[in-house]
Amino acid sequence: MDVYISGIGMTKFGRSKESLETMMAEAASSALKDAHLERVDAIYIGVMNVEEFVGDSNVATLLADTLGLTGVPSTRVETASSTGAGAFETAFYAVASGHLKHVLVLAGEKMTHLPTAKATRILSEVIDRSERRYGATMPALAAMIAQKYSREFNLSPMKLEDILAQVAIKNHSNGCLNPYAQFRKMITKQDYLKSQMVSYPLRLYDCAPITDGASAMILTSHPTPVKVSGVGHATDTAAVAHRTFFTSFNSTKEAAQKAYAMAELKPADIQFAEVHDAFTLFEIIGTEDLGFFAAGEGWRALDEGVTQLRGSLPINPSGGLKARGHPVGASGLAQLVEIVYQLRGEAGKERQLERAEIGLAHSIGGLGNNNLVTILERADRKKTLKAGTSPSPEGWSPDDRCEESIPKRSIPSPPLMGVGTLETFTTLYAVPEGFRSPLTLGLVRTKEGAVVMACNPDYRSPSELRMGGKVSLNTREGLYVFEKLSFWNRLMHWLKK
Amino acid sequence: MDVYISGIGMTKFGRSKESLETMMAEAASSALKDAHLERVDAIYIGVMNVEEFVGDSNVATLLADTLGLTGVPSTRVETASSTGAGAFETAFYAVASGHLKHVLVLAGEKMTHLPTAKATRILSEVIDRSERRYGATMPALAAMIAQKYSREFNLSPMKLEDILAQVAIKNHSNGCLNPYAQFRKMITKQDYLKSQMVSYPLRLYDCAPITDGASAMILTSHPTPVKVSGVGHATDTAAVAHRTFFTSFNSTKEAAQKAYAMAELKPADIQFAEVHDAFTLFEIIGTEDLGFFAAGEGWRALDEGVTQLRGSLPINPSGGLKARGHPVGASGLAQLVEIVYQLRGEAGKERQLERAEIGLAHSIGGLGNNNLVTILERADRKKTLKAGTSPSPEGWSPDDRCEESIPKRSIPSPPLMGVGTLETFTTLYAVPEGFRSPLTLGLVRTKEGAVVMACNPDYRSPSELRMGGKVSLNTREGLYVFEKLSFWNRLMHWLKK
Repeated sequence: MDVYISGIGMTKFGRSKESLETMMAEAASSALKDAHLERVDAIYIGVMNVEEFVGDSNVATLLADTLGLTGVPSTRVETASSTGAGAFETAFYAVASGHLKHVLVLAGEKMTHLPTAKATRILSEVIDRSERRYGATMPALAAMIAQKYSREFNLSPMKLEDILAQVAIKNHSNGCLNPYAQFRKMITKQDYLKSQMVSYPLRLYDCAPITDGASAMILTSHPTPVKVSGVGHATDTAAVAHRTFFTSFNSTKEAAQKAYAMAELKPADIQFAEVHDAFTLFEIIGTEDLGFFAAGEGWRALDEGVTQLRGSLPINPSGGLKARGHPVGASGLAQLVEIVYQLRGEAGKERQLERAEIGLAHSIGGLGNNNLVTILERADRKKTLKAGTSPSPEGWSPDDRCEESIPKRSIPSPPLMGVGTLETFTTLYAVPEGFRSPLTLGLVRTKEGAVVMACNPDYRSPSELRMGGKVSLNTREGLYVFEKLSFWNRLMHWLKK
Repeated sequence: MDVYISGIGMTKFGRSKESLETMMAEAASSALKDAHLERVDAIYIGVMNVEEFVGDSNVATLLADTLGLTGVPSTRVETASSTGAGAFETAFYAVASGHLKHVLVLAGEKMTHLPTAKATRILSEVIDRSERRYGATMPALAAMIAQKYSREFNLSPMKLEDILAQVAIKNHSNGCLNPYAQFRKMITKQDYLKSQMVSYPLRLYDCAPITDGASAMILTSHPTPVKVSGVGHATDTAAVAHRTFFTSFNSTKEAAQKAYAMAELKPADIQFAEVHDAFTLFEIIGTEDLGFFAAGEGWRALDEGVTQLRGSLPINPSGGLKARGHPVGASGLAQLVEIVYQLRGEAGKERQLERAEIGLAHSIGGLGNNNLVTILERADRKKTLKAGTSPSPEGWSPDDRCEESIPKRSIPSPPLMGVGTLETFTTLYAVPEGFRSPLTLGLVRTKEGAVVMACNPDYRSPSELRMGGKVSLNTREGLYVFEKLSFWNRLMHWLKK
């Protein structure tokens, strides 16, 4: 059964004095009003970690009751930071089953009332325990991926900096036009360069902010102007170190394949997209993983203005997570709300895109390991796009781009020691509670071919470290420790051979 | 599209040294093996509060990876203590949509590693904040319902005690025959009476234990011997005080109506059931709310042996939550695993029921406010039952039994004070951290007709209090406080009039 969207709603994102329930009730009420509905057959609630952010459990019930929808079945859904999209997917299947006619998806998070260190600690719990215990935070892992990207595609540190700044500048510029965005001010490259280093090379302006907010949507089996054309969802290894590739997300690629196949569309058919930019580089990687640009070419498209609001493939017209803000549970659904605004032509004179018949939203859960891709289209769009095309997108062969054999999660034992190669590294300045700042973390490839997270407690300067360089790998207090291989180490190593 | 069950699995419930992932992997692996599957199209994970019990977030990803199913879409679902059933319902819609063929539902909880006071505090978070702040725990609220039931249906304290003991004795007796049960020993009425008072009149043996465990199931669109015939789900007010009735759960009644309607069955068609007995009385109320017995008659059926393993309507052949144990996230699915064992004739010589073609599972979320009812049947059962029957069950009119207008959630302001009627009360001995034991709590109906939670800090003896008696209602430090109306209070009150 086909599924349509009959109502949308959201709160202004930002720092709110309201409770989570009040914000979510505001978003839900707008969506119900928009759909001309007073009651629904079911509610799907997307909140990521309401237990620790707010101290409540049983929130699905609490919200049904708060909305005046006491009695209506209500289920909480969670897929880490893609929760809003996960709740949407769950609701999509419920309506597609034919058992439910009108379903409310309601997503939100309340975060700003906590001290940043505590919020960071809660957010870090999405990271695999094997990496979290090194003090790895989301920005630290994203920073290591950014470093690796610059090496793999030959970007100088200055060029990388320039590209990351461009993502932030573009999304802030778009955010200015979005009345629901947390940040509605332009930023310059100077502002970007002045912002504090969070985890080298990522600055504060590379990271989506801590935000309160809620978004809502009504899904229905009754035809409306906006149709759900495809949903796709995939996971990846819990630990980043267990992956084969570090500069793309397999979970995005697999989710995209499924969404394109269901929609019978190819990447070239997508006219605009909301791409998960919790960290600036993730937007660029996202546009590659989604098949819009070849691997390593996403930054060039950005550089050439293709992804600007008035470019040929606008990315994050809403301002993205960067400028709209990132209430973790709500973001995945807020992206879809933006797509509906655009498809309906209701995005406002300045933000409205000219070509807005097919839009895509891409949401990342955790560090790229629970991702969803959703495609919406105008129900009245001319189907000429489909003529003569197969579900397999042109110039984009899924099999080439996805890892064929997905590595199993396994920690080698006994521990791997000796000389290894430093795949990537970062120096983290905003460390979690209980760790000393700055903290240098790296991914080290051992001679056996395994990759492990390791720390460098005798930090001097990141400039001494080099990706691809040789490092010694040892264990200390149950953690892997890496050190730049000194002349003496090298000699000893050579003598042992 | 019809939905079938092709695989089941569970761990032995109890105190486990294994991690949550290991237990869940064991259950999943059994279910996959049972279904002759290596991979599935999606995973639905049911855990209630893994954030606080275990300290992990992003658990859907972690589990997919741990199971060696890296890449497979994985979504966490939660509906408080009915989470296992909530995850099943979500998976049911996903398969019914026709988009997914084979889906793994995997539910679990790890609880015993925490001190009881901490586990109790975490479990109490499912209670509405307005009642939790009085120190109300799940046993305290259940105890107030038990008191009210005894008054409403004229059971003497001794008769109530006898009935509650009978539920515990029956379920322990059934648990003896279940290799997966936490408690596999018979208990006597003497054992019951010796067990400590948790919240008057509920003893330790009235409460399901704190348990570790996991259960798993494979749902498929491919026909198998066991078919899902009906699912139903409903919520109720977050706060117990906001309900019209205290001796039945509206959310069970509404969920049952929906499940019976989808299955085209009536209560009399059900041959056996797993009924949520987190507290002994809840089993009795459950059998009434499900339409098996009239309101106030459930205890009589128990008394007459109807619900015994060899009775005409066996309830909780598995031993129920009471004896099998209650890992909160897992229980709702473990009930369904038992139904499948029985339908397949695989429950073992001693536990196997003779009539096992249609079974029902009933799961309570929170304090009766997020409930699910699921009906499974043998795909080959003779459909003679349906001949000439309508979906509306005979002698059981849904409209009589459900609240017609569901009260909206609202806290009166200014506070209600003066003389009120004590609807029900309990004295709680196992208080949460930060409260003094014993703690007397009550529900007081004001002269305006509202019901509020209140405490009685000047506790002397519960025998001084009487349900239906007049009490004074005041506020102290932001809480409602009730006191038995003394002669002088009464006089003052009379003079004011």
